[in-house]
Amino acid sequence: MNSLFRKDLSDFKPYEAEVNNCKVILNANESFINIEKQLEDEIISVIKDIEINRYPDPTGEKLRKIYGSYSGTDKEKIMIGNGSDELISIICNTFVNSGDKIVKLNPDFSMYKIYGVLHGAEVLEYDLKEDFTLDIDDFIDFINYEKPKVVFVSVPNNPTGGIVKKEDILKLIKSVNSIVVIDEAYFEFYGNTVIDEIDNYDNLIILRTASKIGLAALRLGFLITNSTLLMELYKVKPPYNVNSITQEIGALIYENKQVIEDNISRILREKSSLQISLLSLSERINFKLYPSGTNFILIEIYEAKELYEYLKNNGVSVRFFGKGRLENCIRITVGNRDENRLLLEAINKFLGDR
Amino acid sequence: MNSLFRKDLSDFKPYEAEVNNCKVILNANESFINIEKQLEDEIISVIKDIEINRYPDPTGEKLRKIYGSYSGTDKEKIMIGNGSDELISIICNTFVNSGDKIVKLNPDFSMYKIYGVLHGAEVLEYDLKEDFTLDIDDFIDFINYEKPKVVFVSVPNNPTGGIVKKEDILKLIKSVNSIVVIDEAYFEFYGNTVIDEIDNYDNLIILRTASKIGLAALRLGFLITNSTLLMELYKVKPPYNVNSITQEIGALIYENKQVIEDNISRILREKSSLQISLLSLSERINFKLYPSGTNFILIEIYEAKELYEYLKNNGVSVRFFGKGRLENCIRITVGNRDENRLLLEAINKFLGDR
Repeated sequence: MNSLFRKDLSDFKPYEAEVNNCKVILNANESFINIEKQLEDEIISVIKDIEINRYPDPTGEKLRKIYGSYSGTDKEKIMIGNGSDELISIICNTFVNSGDKIVKLNPDFSMYKIYGVLHGAEVLEYDLKEDFTLDIDDFIDFINYEKPKVVFVSVPNNPTGGIVKKEDILKLIKSVNSIVVIDEAYFEFYGNTVIDEIDNYDNLIILRTASKIGLAALRLGFLITNSTLLMELYKVKPPYNVNSITQEIGALIYENKQVIEDNISRILREKSSLQISLLSLSERINFKLYPSGTNFILIEIYEAKELYEYLKNNGVSVRFFGKGRLENCIRITVGNRDENRLLLEAINKFLGDR
Repeated sequence: MNSLFRKDLSDFKPYEAEVNNCKVILNANESFINIEKQLEDEIISVIKDIEINRYPDPTGEKLRKIYGSYSGTDKEKIMIGNGSDELISIICNTFVNSGDKIVKLNPDFSMYKIYGVLHGAEVLEYDLKEDFTLDIDDFIDFINYEKPKVVFVSVPNNPTGGIVKKEDILKLIKSVNSIVVIDEAYFEFYGNTVIDEIDNYDNLIILRTASKIGLAALRLGFLITNSTLLMELYKVKPPYNVNSITQEIGALIYENKQVIEDNISRILREKSSLQISLLSLSERINFKLYPSGTNFILIEIYEAKELYEYLKNNGVSVRFFGKGRLENCIRITVGNRDENRLLLEAINKFLGDR
């Protein structure tokens, strides 16, 4: 049967999410707050009303209306997805014919490349500078030389936490003849957005997600763009891609904006506290803390691999990349106070044990 | 921006699920039983235990184990999907390079063609005979001449309700050098399967779904195949494609096999009763009832369009296709006793009004 397999995927490896038995999970940029407990009665009431034997609303009218109001845009400019993962895939499938180029940054979210390759694109990676900032003019030159169909940029960046100034994003959008996808997955932690620019450009697509505000289990992403691009994207969207329960719980949560805001504040407070502790640790040993507009912190440390394994053996899971520019980097999701304390104790012990 | 759009999709229309305000919905082959009400306490208890802030189990280990036991196969041979729709898309994406062929029957489930085209395949349709049966030997010749990467066959067929004998399916599988996908979406109503043949062929993939047994809202499909094909398919599967709530409710329902069985019996009893009534009606007017191994009935009637619109105007939604071999056909999902009565009354009235 091997002759029936795609030859261009012969070396392709499935994405493997790390599975571990750690007590403290700080590797996936999830919220540490179980928002379900905060709105349990409302969630149960919503679920009781669902006709589980009927197909979901294909476009999620009600949810789009509520998310439009939450995000300050209009339901007619929104598409919902089975996580923003699916929306990345839909974008690639909509614009990429076999052999077309797409461009992503390096480092940046790995799924841009994976879905690009799966849809037959040639995926080009443009390196961030040594300090993980972006040389916007050189990037624009690169894009105009390569002429990709689609450019993906996460702002803030995952996994560095870094940002690109709004004026630079707008310069990029207007200087290239490509679709520019600004992935605002961490918007709630950063606060800045280009969502208000949707109508000013014909090549801008914005991605958002519910995964970072405490709904990772649900798989819910949002795509916001102008009506011309949206019409093309709807050609590719599977009819019933977001199940009814996700739609209903999503609608409920985004209607309770104050709960989201309170949770974000709490996460940001823990983040500040964790950053301060890590900074003071970093004075004892040569490690670097990168600025972050997200709910995670990237650190660079010579013994990254050893630290990662030490933490894992001590019940704390963080994200280790182990290659390229990220070889010596570890990404730490902000946990709750206890989790962060256990993390810091373990790092301290690692430094003492050396 | 138009120059960035895929030219091969320029005439492609988005799939539009019919939206209507009918009281009686018999157009989407859903179960008429809200299984959630039968297991409400259990479902709520399961949902309370979910950590909604954490990503889902990527492969759905627990659900695969339970579905393996339900279906008489092994969890290591199962992949879960966001509806079988997503699994069809994953199959196309796994095996199809741009320009490769896939083959489907005509008529058969429309999504095979849609996902085929979206993944750049040349989609060939092989016509069923006038009575909607399949000439298996001629079909095999067609496949061996065209040499497609993938062949899709739904058994029972949607939308005809017809079946292909097991010996013919096996003959097909062993006579062609293509991946053969047998879509058993309506298995629970038909009872026959080739799932026990998974290890005997290297080119067989089976699809199943939870949508027809009363869980359409959840979006849950299953793919069953041998480990070699499964490894290729896992390259393409998105990491977190099935949300946690769907996984947990799915696991709960498939563990309660008796509830499923009781519901299927009830649907089949209503189906028999509806078939008898339709048959007696058909004697008054020139319409034909096709045999069905499913939870729906296909009828062929000269005034199909008029009947469809009359029913819709009278609050009964059925499925009308309006083109090709199905021009004069209407597909009616079996409803509950009241719904079927309203349907029959409306048909009767239509016949009287002519």
